[in-house]
Amino acid sequence: MKKHSVDLNSDMGEGFGAWQIGDGVDEDIMPFISSANIATGFHAGDPNIMARTVQLAKQAGVGVGAHPGFRDLVGFGRRTITESPQALVNDIIFQLGALREFARLYNVSVQHVKPHGALYMLAARDEDLSRLLIETLQRLDPTLLLYCMEASVTYRIARELGQPVIREFYADRDYDRSGSIVFTRRVGRLDADQVAAKVLRACVEGRVATVDGDDIAIDFDSVCIHSDTPGALKLVESTRALLTRHDIRVAAPLPARVH
Amino acid sequence: MKKHSVDLNSDMGEGFGAWQIGDGVDEDIMPFISSANIATGFHAGDPNIMARTVQLAKQAGVGVGAHPGFRDLVGFGRRTITESPQALVNDIIFQLGALREFARLYNVSVQHVKPHGALYMLAARDEDLSRLLIETLQRLDPTLLLYCMEASVTYRIARELGQPVIREFYADRDYDRSGSIVFTRRVGRLDADQVAAKVLRACVEGRVATVDGDDIAIDFDSVCIHSDTPGALKLVESTRALLTRHDIRVAAPLPARVH
Amino acid sequence: MKKHSVDLNSDMGEGFGAWQIGDGVDEDIMPFISSANIATGFHAGDPNIMARTVQLAKQAGVGVGAHPGFRDLVGFGRRTITESPQALVNDIIFQLGALREFARLYNVSVQHVKPHGALYMLAARDEDLSRLLIETLQRLDPTLLLYCMEASVTYRIARELGQPVIREFYADRDYDRSGSIVFTRRVGRLDADQVAAKVLRACVEGRVATVDGDDIAIDFDSVCIHSDTPGALKLVESTRALLTRHDIRVAAPLPARVH
Amino acid sequence: MKKHSVDLNSDMGEGFGAWQIGDGVDEDIMPFISSANIATGFHAGDPNIMARTVQLAKQAGVGVGAHPGFRDLVGFGRRTITESPQALVNDIIFQLGALREFARLYNVSVQHVKPHGALYMLAARDEDLSRLLIETLQRLDPTLLLYCMEASVTYRIARELGQPVIREFYADRDYDRSGSIVFTRRVGRLDADQVAAKVLRACVEGRVATVDGDDIAIDFDSVCIHSDTPGALKLVESTRALLTRHDIRVAAPLPARVH
Repeated sequence: MKKHSVDLNSDMGEGFGAWQIGDGVDEDIMPFISSANIATGFHAGDPNIMARTVQLAKQAGVGVGAHPGFRDLVGFGRRTITESPQALVNDIIFQLGALREFARLYNVSVQHVKPHGALYMLAARDEDLSRLLIETLQRLDPTLLLYCMEASVTYRIARELGQPVIREFYADRDYDRSGSIVFTRRVGRLDADQVAAKVLRACVEGRVATVDGDDIAIDFDSVCIHSDTPGALKLVESTRALLTRHDIRVAAPLPARVH
Repeated sequence: MKKHSVDLNSDMGEGFGAWQIGDGVDEDIMPFISSANIATGFHAGDPNIMARTVQLAKQAGVGVGAHPGFRDLVGFGRRTITESPQALVNDIIFQLGALREFARLYNVSVQHVKPHGALYMLAARDEDLSRLLIETLQRLDPTLLLYCMEASVTYRIARELGQPVIREFYADRDYDRSGSIVFTRRVGRLDADQVAAKVLRACVEGRVATVDGDDIAIDFDSVCIHSDTPGALKLVESTRALLTRHDIRVAAPLPARVH
Repeated sequence: MKKHSVDLNSDMGEGFGAWQIGDGVDEDIMPFISSANIATGFHAGDPNIMARTVQLAKQAGVGVGAHPGFRDLVGFGRRTITESPQALVNDIIFQLGALREFARLYNVSVQHVKPHGALYMLAARDEDLSRLLIETLQRLDPTLLLYCMEASVTYRIARELGQPVIREFYADRDYDRSGSIVFTRRVGRLDADQVAAKVLRACVEGRVATVDGDDIAIDFDSVCIHSDTPGALKLVESTRALLTRHDIRVAAPLPARVH
Repeated sequence: MKKHSVDLNSDMGEGFGAWQIGDGVDEDIMPFISSANIATGFHAGDPNIMARTVQLAKQAGVGVGAHPGFRDLVGFGRRTITESPQALVNDIIFQLGALREFARLYNVSVQHVKPHGALYMLAARDEDLSRLLIETLQRLDPTLLLYCMEASVTYRIARELGQPVIREFYADRDYDRSGSIVFTRRVGRLDADQVAAKVLRACVEGRVATVDGDDIAIDFDSVCIHSDTPGALKLVESTRALLTRHDIRVAAPLPARVH
């Protein structure tokens, strides 16, 4: 039951022009993770940052993923916008293609796609959106890994349609009783040792405590730590170190491990 | 010397959200052209429009091209922005990839790339930008056709580096003595018969009158008529009809015809 | 009970850069209306268009109003964005001030404010947003007229707090049984005579038919006809002509008439 | 000749949404300056940030100024965009008005206007733009202080037309022989003591060394230190402390001191 290996993913390239977000620097965080969700311009990221981030990921041997969001720079993709599934899927296609072109230029392949923020949460509960997204991914690339929560309609439909999925565990978010994360716009500074211990327990025991005071079973393929969580570098360092000490390897998903 | 066949290209998909530009409707113009320069979101176009325009081009058997511009919606890409060649090429990569993903979804290939407006004119005179763009295209796709004017550094460098180029003739723009077009932000309504006659003469005699009162030799592979020129539909209809009456076929560039 | 005078308002300046929306031209419509809701840049409008539209309104003797929307150009402000009342009110303050500066330059005063599209509809049902907006207007300008529907929390709170309100009748939208309009992203072409007759009946009898097949009482101070409704010019012309034939004067709200 | 008092201005509110720029925090810097150039949304700043920054300035007793830039978030207003003077002045009017509305809400007056980055530098050399801007300011508010360099056409025309001007000394930029600053997109970390000493010498002796190795006379009313220069807080602290030790008071411009 204990995992021997787990993916560690983080959002990368989330600046815009001269702006930065969070106190973590991508160059510092990249060596500790195994998969990078690269912002694709709608909620964050721009072509220069995308080019640089793809190169950083390549140098670090980190899996490259598209991280498309709502078209909402000022809201950083954390605000839900009422829109049809078709229009949202077109937004995702656009952003995925943009990243893929940089991946082609630097000779890496795009490993995965993970919607960002409010779009991820909307897909998690909206069957029409998840279905259309996954049907579209199957036409575009049936091997592309889709990151989602196990407690989501995205996961259920991906399994139903046969798109490979990676279930995530959110190290820096709280869980509720349903196994869903409690969405929040701002996350405070977390204790790195506690976060690492939470991840280790989830990897070893398959359990996590909830905000309701419960303790639930959880299964997953990848641990997510957000790079804009204050002290993100410390969180990924500590988590990776603790996992390593317990013989759990941090590695990008292998095609064989994929559901 | 008279051409037996010529490409006819037009900018397509240049709306944004609920907005339209020009009085021409893409659905009406598409059947008369052979290559479509599809706006890729920075100066015009959005994911929904791109999806629809790729489908329209496919249905009409029209060659699909990326039409990347400066990031300048309010200026419609007609304003020059001082920026490094690397950042501008990154902008182009981003936009090319976005279009390519829609082309992949609808199972067509991207035939060409043509920078838009002020970016096209900047590349025409800026050696560093043209060189970096063409070197990048060669890494991304050495068969992608690059549309440009013969009287441009873009053309010279594409020939030097071996990227296939399509030289354009601007049916709805004025030429100066150097063989370059006179850039303008707004074009008035043109006489469709005169435009068609100008194109026919250029195809048959290889000559065009200039604003200076001269008459110069001109060679080209494609005729461009802008869809936002007032009365654009009439212009493409009349031009295609006149060319056809003179046994000049309107057809997308064949790989074999490419320089 | 029959009205002797009514305001006729329309959204003006809703282009962006080189783009237009609808087939109505502001210059043509302006002479037929009495109040202009001028787009303030977030969902439509730009500084050049705002400058021109304020001047057009001044020349036509039409009351100038701010028409702030969600920050959503691609969605034309017709998509709801989840956001705090404070942030939305800050968006409105920003846009109101921008318009006020053009009004100052051309020596006219801003008569009213009317939120646009999805923001108008959100305020109509969201008490916190309406209350914070109205409290803020009272600090900024307690004489500024706020346009809203009688069947809205906006109206109720404006009355409660003493901000002057103008209740609207939507000539080109359908009503439901509650007296609220049925929100729609796209409106088809309407019969101008029917629209005019609907307005006349509302002005004379104070009644309107609903989509449910009912017929309800309705009271209002201003008739709204959207300039992006297809055939908008014909709608305002016919409506104004019919009202005039029945001795109902089209005029901007007088301070004295204000609730 | 030695100054008894000088203004110290800094750009404030230059984040956007969740993003920050520079390592300086506005809350920390504000108490050390006397005038704040508040970003007005086109190159940086958003309505929430503007609201907060106006309140911060008010609390610190700091003069509030509008800091309008090119419409260029990704380029942070540091890229020149070819545009007509009229369109650029409309952009400035829009942004000035937006700030003024927040100032009205918090009951402070707007003291000054200072174009940002590439727009400031363009106005400094473009007579048509400076003239139209100043003529427009005179219609809008003839007492509004215009910040500029003495070595600029902006200064010459403001004097000619009678608009009050504040001449700036750039503590964190290099000067050339002409008395103009050397524009740069990125500024490295500077030694705070050297910067303070440079300002003190300019205040006491009226001289500054140039990048050419010269030493030129310079006169000014305000010292500018950019908040996005690395270590900005240290720079303003050290500069203010050194000036204070030499009995030079840091204070916002008095109407009487204005040229």
